[in-house]
This record gives sequence, structure tokens and C-alpha cells, in this order.
Amino acid sequence: MPQQTVELDRVFKALSDPTRRSVVERLVVGSASTSELAEPFAMALPSFAQHLDVLERAGMVTSTKTGRVRTYELVPTALGVADGWLAEQRRLWERRLDQLDVLLRTFDTSSTHDQEQR
Amino acid sequence: MPQQTVELDRVFKALSDPTRRSVVERLVVGSASTSELAEPFAMALPSFAQHLDVLERAGMVTSTKTGRVRTYELVPTALGVADGWLAEQRRLWERRLDQLDVLLRTFDTSSTHDQEQR
Repeated sequence: MPQQTVELDRVFKALSDPTRRSVVERLVVGSASTSELAEPFAMALPSFAQHLDVLERAGMVTSTKTGRVRTYELVPTALGVADGWLAEQRRLWERRLDQLDVLLRTFDTSSTHDQEQR
Repeated sequence: MPQQTVELDRVFKALSDPTRRSVVERLVVGSASTSELAEPFAMALPSFAQHLDVLERAGMVTSTKTGRVRTYELVPTALGVADGWLAEQRRLWERRLDQLDVLLRTFDTSSTHDQEQR
């Protein structure tokens, strides 16, 4: 399976959970420690750590440990891969709408032409 | 949980599978029947039908049955919800980079100023 396919699987899977999306939303504005990230959630730390693991395995965050504090940082390229796939679908969809528009206008012109010939 | 959260969960989950993404890529360019959609995949029809069910439950496709043929159509608004969430993260990330850029330039100006004062 192509590398990008596996990456898209992991990134979309990681984003399918509200806790993990909240972590991404937090890290987009700046790096944060495990406890800072966990603070808004009424969740046991081991469960929360599993969410961070999913994000790290999906290549969406990296972490560094200094003393007892682990700090997380967003990896924006992973979000970019998902963003790129969705942008491509939007581009194709808009092209389809444009083609439909051209088709409708052609139909409209030929139907006006038919009426004029009557 | 807010409605959009549930919708994002379902849409991102639906997109985390390569077969389902391929179906979306196919439907973006036009509607198609179950057999047309299944044709590129070496997969038993019941397994393939489950993927279509996931997409339909996520509100990403709709289907209509005429005689024995079921035809699928993309619902672009569902992709738009995912696209919108990612666009917001990109916007916040770019704003962060801009702020960092301003900070670096401020630092650069004050450091040049310091050197001039020496």
C-alpha cells in the first residue's frame, strides 16, 4: 500500500476522536506539557496518554522529555496531508459543478434556439 | 456533545479507510451504482456494502433504489465539515507563524539597535 495511503488512514483515524481533535486544536497555538494538555479533560491520565500515543504514532505530534516533563509539539505536515486530500476532492467537485453549469447553459441556448426556429 | 462533534467523529472515521476514500474519490466525479463502485475492489460484496453503509451513516453519501439498482450520490456538505475544521487549524497555525515572524523581526531590530549603540 502506498505510504500516503497509510498516513491518511492514521491521520483520519486520529482525528475521528473529539479528545484528540481538542489536543490538536490546543497544540496548533503552541506546544504544551502532558499535564497542560490533560487539564481540560475529566479523564484518567493513562486513558489520556493513549490518545497522545495515537497522535504520536500518526506522526501528528512529537514529544520531548526534559526532567519529568514531557512537552508536545504539533507536526503540521500530517494535518497538511489530510488537508491536501480534502482540497483535491473539493477541486474535483467544483470542476464537476462547472461542467454541469456549462452543460445547462448549452441546453438553455439550444432550447432558446429551438423556440426561435418555431 | 455538540452535533458538529459527532458529525466530525463520523466523517473522519469514514475517511480513515482506503476503500471508503476511493468510493468518495469516485463519487466526487459523478453518481454510480453499487456494482460500478465495487468493480475496482477484489472484495466480497457484503464487505463492500458495509463500507457503503459507513459512508451513508456518516451522511457522506445518499442512495436511491430503482428496480434492482441502487445508485449512490456524494453529499458534499459532509466533506465540507471536515474541510472546514482542517482549514480552521491551518488558519490558526499560519497566524502563529506570522506572530513568530513578527517576534523574530522585533528581536532582529532590537539586536541591530543594540549593535548600533555599541
